[in-house]
Amino acid sequence: MPDERTAAWDRQQIHDVVLRYCQGIDRLDLDLVRSAYHQDGIDHHTGFDGTVDEFVAWVFPQLAEHLAGTMHVIGNHRVELFGDDALSETYLTAVHWGSGPDSPAGFTTGARYVDHMTFRSGRWAISERWAVREWLRPEGGVLTPATGAGPLARRDGSDPVELLRDRLTSAPRGDRSG
Amino acid sequence: MPDERTAAWDRQQIHDVVLRYCQGIDRLDLDLVRSAYHQDGIDHHTGFDGTVDEFVAWVFPQLAEHLAGTMHVIGNHRVELFGDDALSETYLTAVHWGSGPDSPAGFTTGARYVDHMTFRSGRWAISERWAVREWLRPEGGVLTPATGAGPLARRDGSDPVELLRDRLTSAPRGDRSG
Amino acid sequence: MPDERTAAWDRQQIHDVVLRYCQGIDRLDLDLVRSAYHQDGIDHHTGFDGTVDEFVAWVFPQLAEHLAGTMHVIGNHRVELFGDDALSETYLTAVHWGSGPDSPAGFTTGARYVDHMTFRSGRWAISERWAVREWLRPEGGVLTPATGAGPLARRDGSDPVELLRDRLTSAPRGDRSG
Repeated sequence: MPDERTAAWDRQQIHDVVLRYCQGIDRLDLDLVRSAYHQDGIDHHTGFDGTVDEFVAWVFPQLAEHLAGTMHVIGNHRVELFGDDALSETYLTAVHWGSGPDSPAGFTTGARYVDHMTFRSGRWAISERWAVREWLRPEGGVLTPATGAGPLARRDGSDPVELLRDRLTSAPRGDRSG
Repeated sequence: MPDERTAAWDRQQIHDVVLRYCQGIDRLDLDLVRSAYHQDGIDHHTGFDGTVDEFVAWVFPQLAEHLAGTMHVIGNHRVELFGDDALSETYLTAVHWGSGPDSPAGFTTGARYVDHMTFRSGRWAISERWAVREWLRPEGGVLTPATGAGPLARRDGSDPVELLRDRLTSAPRGDRSG
Repeated sequence: MPDERTAAWDRQQIHDVVLRYCQGIDRLDLDLVRSAYHQDGIDHHTGFDGTVDEFVAWVFPQLAEHLAGTMHVIGNHRVELFGDDALSETYLTAVHWGSGPDSPAGFTTGARYVDHMTFRSGRWAISERWAVREWLRPEGGVLTPATGAGPLARRDGSDPVELLRDRLTSAPRGDRSG
């Protein structure tokens, strides 16, 4: 941590949290993935709600056993700072492939990471993540809008990024790290 | 605005303008889209040339009526600063989908936002935008190079990003906010 | 160069190196591409190992003669700073197209630029680049994992990004600009 925290430093650190998560997932480096969350961090994925340790235990077998490789490519990353809390929205295009052209596992999906990040114990990390799905395109097939249980995208003002912004902007200033 | 404007602050603010535009388009938040432009800002899209208010009136019905969702995913964002003017080039991959797998509306397009941004009234915003098309891929089909009326990509030194750079670098230093 | 180099300035300059490379390749601007490397910079691509001058002589005919356009879209860009050395990893989705829908040349590829950047003669530039391939999707076809001679992605701890990090973190602090 620098002598004086600045908004620019906060943004860079928050960006690095997102990058570490992706690099960890794509390289199968569990520690790098865990480093993106606080120890009590919560993750909401399609078909999963739980702590970071439970998330890692759930996601790694899927990555290692069924796929030959993944690229979690991030685009737009917008951070809104509220003291020791931050709203971080990251656009994601995730490419998944099997070991050959006939593998049934290949697909690409569009999603957004809506993250409630907090600055605690001298570092920024995820307190709560919603992996908001947008679309799915099986390899060789066509795109379909995302369905099923889990965070889904909305365009009526109730998207997870808008709900989290409402929560962070209405909370009392000194009591936001929950 | 901070006490002292720095190049880093200028870059971050310009980046946020691009992010707000995309978030506004994808969430159907008109005010967020408008906030990316100065009030007299001009937009050039395929089949459209006009002010920001005319642009919003033109684009929103297309987004809301014919599509179930969009993701305007940005990649490369290069900013060249010239005092209160800036050349901002943003790579864009825009995914559009309908309400079902048989929707005829689904397509992905590659483009670049070439923006003349200016710092006026205490904020950075778009003075003039060229949405430069590169390619189009209908869902389930193959990519074709972009055609038709509107800003098109060039590789002969006359791309909109190169023309705008020429304009900004040859203009007298104190007279660039036009 | 500013009066005082900061980590933020280093990161911004390194990011601009990556952006200049992509803009140069996509606009066929050889000087912009060359500006991303030190004069003795080395590049490793699939089917190519050599200096920056040799690389430019190798790649430009392919871009100009066989393709109507390219977009080298970057996503995740993670920089790890080690004094005058840096490890820079950039996710890349490169779209290539011919002059018509029936062109055999169209394809999209996923890769990562693993760059050893160094600060020398007052500027950051590439000392050595590994263009690490991940996947290839011919236009109208399906994704296949990358194969053949050249830097390939790994998930067992020996990916080029991990090998370069090992090298940069184990080198004596004052002797890293090699």
